[in-house]
Amino acid sequence: MKKKTTIYDIAKELNITVSTVSRALSGFPAISDATRQLVVETAKRLNYSPNKLASALKSGKTFIVGVIVPSVEAHFFASIIHSIEEGLKDSGYRIILYQSKESLVNEVNGVRTLLEAQVDGIMASMSLETDDVSHFEEIIAQNKPLVLFDRVNKQLRVPTITLNDYQAGYMATQYLIDQGYKNIAFITTVHQIKIFNDRLKGYKDAIRDNKLPFSEDNIILGGLSIKDGRYGAAKLLRSENRPDAIVAGDDFTALGVIKKLKEIDETPPKIGVIGFANEAFSAYITPSLSTVDQHPGEMGKACAEMFLQMAGQLNPYDSIRNIVLEPTIVERQSTGNTDAKD
Amino acid sequence: MKKKTTIYDIAKELNITVSTVSRALSGFPAISDATRQLVVETAKRLNYSPNKLASALKSGKTFIVGVIVPSVEAHFFASIIHSIEEGLKDSGYRIILYQSKESLVNEVNGVRTLLEAQVDGIMASMSLETDDVSHFEEIIAQNKPLVLFDRVNKQLRVPTITLNDYQAGYMATQYLIDQGYKNIAFITTVHQIKIFNDRLKGYKDAIRDNKLPFSEDNIILGGLSIKDGRYGAAKLLRSENRPDAIVAGDDFTALGVIKKLKEIDETPPKIGVIGFANEAFSAYITPSLSTVDQHPGEMGKACAEMFLQMAGQLNPYDSIRNIVLEPTIVERQSTGNTDAKD
Repeated sequence: MKKKTTIYDIAKELNITVSTVSRALSGFPAISDATRQLVVETAKRLNYSPNKLASALKSGKTFIVGVIVPSVEAHFFASIIHSIEEGLKDSGYRIILYQSKESLVNEVNGVRTLLEAQVDGIMASMSLETDDVSHFEEIIAQNKPLVLFDRVNKQLRVPTITLNDYQAGYMATQYLIDQGYKNIAFITTVHQIKIFNDRLKGYKDAIRDNKLPFSEDNIILGGLSIKDGRYGAAKLLRSENRPDAIVAGDDFTALGVIKKLKEIDETPPKIGVIGFANEAFSAYITPSLSTVDQHPGEMGKACAEMFLQMAGQLNPYDSIRNIVLEPTIVERQSTGNTDAKD
Repeated sequence: MKKKTTIYDIAKELNITVSTVSRALSGFPAISDATRQLVVETAKRLNYSPNKLASALKSGKTFIVGVIVPSVEAHFFASIIHSIEEGLKDSGYRIILYQSKESLVNEVNGVRTLLEAQVDGIMASMSLETDDVSHFEEIIAQNKPLVLFDRVNKQLRVPTITLNDYQAGYMATQYLIDQGYKNIAFITTVHQIKIFNDRLKGYKDAIRDNKLPFSEDNIILGGLSIKDGRYGAAKLLRSENRPDAIVAGDDFTALGVIKKLKEIDETPPKIGVIGFANEAFSAYITPSLSTVDQHPGEMGKACAEMFLQMAGQLNPYDSIRNIVLEPTIVERQSTGNTDAKD
């Protein structure tokens, strides 16, 4: 019986590396179409067995990474996804996305679905419901890279990319104080305890460090949405000790606050307003909205770099890094920046 | 040797159907956690072989549907995805997403990636580059449902869900005429020929049907973005036969137009502006933006229904339907609706 053709034979025939042959036959995107065609034609000519290829590939990589986010509808997550893709592009990795829709059951299904789809690794930002993280252990058990971003859980010994949320809360408050506001309220949420607790702590510390009076009445706990912003602003404006500025938990909530303030002729910056996340619309509303930029672009870039680093190692969990990004303030009209264009 | 345990034994033991056992063991989401736990415990107690399960599952469905879109960053596609998920929820199907990023090569990779991930079917909206549709033939060849939406290709004999784009162009123009505008310009794009050609034809027919003069100078062909809107508006305003209203190819372009008009004190509705897509920000800018709603919610719902119908058939391509949705106008301040709130 004639000896069977191997990818080494194809490589030798074409005077290229075995790796190039393997990548060309496995449809690796970074290989040029010309090379791929040449390899496939040569493989056929030498009677290379496609079954052999299939089993060879099984042991190899799929060059697919799974990304789990609460929802792609949030601009913040859509931006992170965009920069993850940018960061992975040159390495030939493609991503498939899964949305948890803030449900733990969905998230568990997502991890399983992606592992069944033979992804080479997973990047995830957790749902609001996630209090048990055992489903993520399965990824680690398979020795595949897991990178957590934004909403993370310290129970898992994996790399994380997060924002300094304490600093975000502190900066937003300090910025309003620097603009001359003295009685600052905070509309926030009880969900996703870590991030929002950190921000609230930052807010409180900024108030204290500036020796301003603190009042529990200035903290409105509820949801985050346009409706919640309107409701929160209305409640704050009815109080005896009416605030002269409001920190809103996200830009949608800040938009609701602005709508309410305009209705009663207290249009910002008369009462100052600042949000979080720098959503797509924030620059375009009137007055334009000051906000805390959470740098989703940098976060996605860091996720991609972290993943590639881990993917190149025999044991991806040998050294674990936790990257913390620093927020920045975007100054616009809602806090009195008259130079900001609308 | 003792007879091996089958799922029939488990079903008999628990007095439930074989289907329920199968679905519980395969992690089908519509099964309650209590039932699943009971089935898994009973399976273990009866020494049910997990390998048997694995091979049984291989012949079955994964209950995963792949969805390919140009980008999840566009609100339009994010909304469609949201309503596809809503529409599939009760049936137990979950979706994984793949972005083509307007590249044909990416789209080809996406189809392959999803098929390798053993999806039960694919829904797709094509990239701007897609002129060859052979990669989609593979899905049809596997007798798996393929549903195309919004950006479709008539070469493929598959169900489609589209918007009546001719009507969208006609309605936007007719609406401006009804508001009293007489010289209407159109900033549009040369990409994605079918949709934009249809809209342009609608615009031209509305001008003709109303016996208004038509001028090629009133049509600006380029890209669609805030920058393109500013540029297009500036060009139109320099012309001798200056328009009194502008149809912009999407809401971002319309936003650029509005910015330019505000700078030169021709704030809409002085010059009327209407966009397409009803993006998240459109209600909140000043003046608020009139726009053509393309009903992504209905489109996603129709995709889900179409898929479920096909998935339930032995031959999903036996009868092929093409659904066309009708657009509607959202009247706001940029075309003189003073009742619209900002």
